[in-house]
Amino acid sequence: MTVRNDVSDWWRTRIIDMEPGRIHLRGKPVQDLIGNTGFAEMIWLLVMGEEISGPRAALFEAALVSAVDHGPQAPSIGAARMAATCGIGLQSVMATGLNMLGDVHGGAGEQAITLYRQCEAAGPDGLPPTLNAWRADHGRFIPGFGHRFHKPVDPRAPRLLALVDAAAEAGAVSGAYAGIGRAIESHLAKERGKPVPMNIDGATAVIYAELGCPAPLARGFFGLSRSVGILAHGWEQMEQGGRNKGPTPPEYRWTYDGD
Amino acid sequence: MTVRNDVSDWWRTRIIDMEPGRIHLRGKPVQDLIGNTGFAEMIWLLVMGEEISGPRAALFEAALVSAVDHGPQAPSIGAARMAATCGIGLQSVMATGLNMLGDVHGGAGEQAITLYRQCEAAGPDGLPPTLNAWRADHGRFIPGFGHRFHKPVDPRAPRLLALVDAAAEAGAVSGAYAGIGRAIESHLAKERGKPVPMNIDGATAVIYAELGCPAPLARGFFGLSRSVGILAHGWEQMEQGGRNKGPTPPEYRWTYDGD
Amino acid sequence: MTVRNDVSDWWRTRIIDMEPGRIHLRGKPVQDLIGNTGFAEMIWLLVMGEEISGPRAALFEAALVSAVDHGPQAPSIGAARMAATCGIGLQSVMATGLNMLGDVHGGAGEQAITLYRQCEAAGPDGLPPTLNAWRADHGRFIPGFGHRFHKPVDPRAPRLLALVDAAAEAGAVSGAYAGIGRAIESHLAKERGKPVPMNIDGATAVIYAELGCPAPLARGFFGLSRSVGILAHGWEQMEQGGRNKGPTPPEYRWTYDGD
Amino acid sequence: MTVRNDVSDWWRTRIIDMEPGRIHLRGKPVQDLIGNTGFAEMIWLLVMGEEISGPRAALFEAALVSAVDHGPQAPSIGAARMAATCGIGLQSVMATGLNMLGDVHGGAGEQAITLYRQCEAAGPDGLPPTLNAWRADHGRFIPGFGHRFHKPVDPRAPRLLALVDAAAEAGAVSGAYAGIGRAIESHLAKERGKPVPMNIDGATAVIYAELGCPAPLARGFFGLSRSVGILAHGWEQMEQGGRNKGPTPPEYRWTYDGD
Repeated sequence: MTVRNDVSDWWRTRIIDMEPGRIHLRGKPVQDLIGNTGFAEMIWLLVMGEEISGPRAALFEAALVSAVDHGPQAPSIGAARMAATCGIGLQSVMATGLNMLGDVHGGAGEQAITLYRQCEAAGPDGLPPTLNAWRADHGRFIPGFGHRFHKPVDPRAPRLLALVDAAAEAGAVSGAYAGIGRAIESHLAKERGKPVPMNIDGATAVIYAELGCPAPLARGFFGLSRSVGILAHGWEQMEQGGRNKGPTPPEYRWTYDGD
Repeated sequence: MTVRNDVSDWWRTRIIDMEPGRIHLRGKPVQDLIGNTGFAEMIWLLVMGEEISGPRAALFEAALVSAVDHGPQAPSIGAARMAATCGIGLQSVMATGLNMLGDVHGGAGEQAITLYRQCEAAGPDGLPPTLNAWRADHGRFIPGFGHRFHKPVDPRAPRLLALVDAAAEAGAVSGAYAGIGRAIESHLAKERGKPVPMNIDGATAVIYAELGCPAPLARGFFGLSRSVGILAHGWEQMEQGGRNKGPTPPEYRWTYDGD
Repeated sequence: MTVRNDVSDWWRTRIIDMEPGRIHLRGKPVQDLIGNTGFAEMIWLLVMGEEISGPRAALFEAALVSAVDHGPQAPSIGAARMAATCGIGLQSVMATGLNMLGDVHGGAGEQAITLYRQCEAAGPDGLPPTLNAWRADHGRFIPGFGHRFHKPVDPRAPRLLALVDAAAEAGAVSGAYAGIGRAIESHLAKERGKPVPMNIDGATAVIYAELGCPAPLARGFFGLSRSVGILAHGWEQMEQGGRNKGPTPPEYRWTYDGD
Repeated sequence: MTVRNDVSDWWRTRIIDMEPGRIHLRGKPVQDLIGNTGFAEMIWLLVMGEEISGPRAALFEAALVSAVDHGPQAPSIGAARMAATCGIGLQSVMATGLNMLGDVHGGAGEQAITLYRQCEAAGPDGLPPTLNAWRADHGRFIPGFGHRFHKPVDPRAPRLLALVDAAAEAGAVSGAYAGIGRAIESHLAKERGKPVPMNIDGATAVIYAELGCPAPLARGFFGLSRSVGILAHGWEQMEQGGRNKGPTPPEYRWTYDGD
């Protein structure tokens, strides 16, 4: 046992307990987890501090799978590929991409959960004013709906929603947030006179909300998911080679906009 | 179809193909992967460009599970917890920790694969000179063996090796690298007159080598794994609160070592 | 001349113009700047797009000098020293520290400028309600005032204020923000019945406001300044050696707080 | 005085000494440095632990000024501009760019100093074999010479060399490394039958070597210098606006290179 003192207390944690030859993660011996627990289940256990299994685990895994990549036009992926040609280690390449997942690039899932919970609290009739209040506070975008590229439909969203429906039917989740998400979608379509379909952020937010995640973890889990694509692209770029890869072929340079 | 031109070619990739409403990852529609593919399998597919399944997938998953956390004394975890009190987003907290996984902190797996492959090429009799050559080039540490904390045994290593043995018996992997790892372990014990047991880096390197990974990906996969612990600790710290958390309780300050 | 097209336009900038053998920064040939312009003046020119000289340049330089370091208890410095033992490059060590300068650790300068400008707009009588409104929106701390460590006085603040006074007397700046800063300080002292002196963030914010900086640049300039300390500490740690330096001596470990 | 103990000793430093109300940097009260010391001099003092002044300080300042920016095609600058549209703080934008300055992008200065010192040790006749040995170890590029863009001449290099010559004439530096740099330049020209002129990395390396810097600090000082351009571009991009800026205009997408 570590002697309890102010220095040790400064770093207190409920996640891991350790002494020489012994590692317990959330109270479980690591050697019992290895080989018996899937990676997605391990993520949930370590971050949320509780076990997940069955259809709930499958939903969580589907959300993680769905967001791994969106190609080199995504700033996180593009920057990671550029970093991979600059002579830094593969982990620093990954950190470069991950660090760019901020409020705008990857923050919509967190915002969507917050919004869904406000809609839940407001009840069905409260949905329109809740959306209006959101727009008054945060600007015209409703997080989780619409996509500048995938028109008419982001293929990931209906697939994820269908999985939520199946899990709700099996009694594994309530389905309440799938309902709220669809209510927002149909309200927006009516308002705008054309579909504003739920996107990947809106759909993963439904899953994370159904599973009881605090909103900020939607962002954290998205980071774990997108790290996979960042690694794949960083590594592919290393294999392709190149030195100091810029954003466009060198002969394009940039437009000087000064006087 | 995108028109092929020099600008598009500058960003060419085999990982993802996309047009509005369609996302293919390594040639597979994303909606077919979601709900049908585990997260570990998805990682392998995206990074390695091939499918993994059955006992090979189980081995890969075990390696990912085994390295998620080693507590706040690990610089990556400690720094992430400090970052979590500085007012930056959760992804930047994760990037802070991930960025610290360099040649020393998390690089041993990559080095161990390289060494194992050198030992394989040299054959059983070539093992001692191969280890000596390694030490001549890289210093006295043999990567993947010994642990400054887990004495006598790191509980993760024998568990991982046992899983490799089972997979080899089932014909899913050759078992050659488990053999090499054990040969190094017993050679070092003889040399030093006491056990220098395989550690987590040595054991995950056996798995990654058995599965045919390029050595640098041992580092990349370790990064994905440890990101889980970084997220868990960053989030726990955010929940605990604190502002500008330093490495020790504030009353300790530091020793001024100047004149 | 680069042919103007959509790809080049995507990266348009007023900062730099370049062709083979020619580099102009903010319209000036780089070879004329080298050897004729100080580093602080160069920073101002490149970031603000205008020249600075004389007493105004001296004020800017003083602000940059004042914030270079606050020791290893600052999370940015502590983390950089830990990173320096992990086997990553010196620039990645610097990035580790810099990345931690968020809203809480280094954001007060930006907030203080915003507050000063609100106080300016409100006029002298509007100061108390402006401070109250700030607290209603952002919590009980008034950014730029008080220090948990430097009691009773942060030695940097009065020195910086004295330089502002001298520059105002020389007609180089208006001195209005020094006045506002002091008015806040005396209001807080009256309110609390004890001094809540202006700190380094409050004092550098006075300078940046006097010089006409947009508020977010207070954060950017602080980053340039603190990068110096981060480099100094990262390098000193590399020279001291160590591998995987944790936040406390290894024998302290952490308190396990779980059940 | 801090009580000396193992926890405080773990964070020992010669850079800063502090107690409430007192901050000494390298033994000097911070309030005496503010307003009396230039930013470049402060950098040298804090990092190197000694004072610099007169023509030596001017040389150091010239090196810092010379490398502040090379435009958005440099991966560090391009990535920082992309990061600035992702909803992360300005410091994290800066860290994104800085983190990319690795062995390839900004490492040549460090390598050039190492090479210069090898050439110095080898003496004039030893120069050709020293260059050959370097190429045998590191590949065909001689760090600090040639430029893929600035042909025939990088305008920064001759200007920096002229400043070194003037400082050598004034007795402030020996001029030995300027001589070595020129000897390499003329040897490469003879070898290749055309000029391979010294570039910015080779020229700043001459200055840092003349001033007695350890080689890795060439990289650290380059990082401080380029951070200025990273900040300027990150801030300009924030002012331009944009959300999730990718490397090329969105209509270009990327070429899918798979089967």
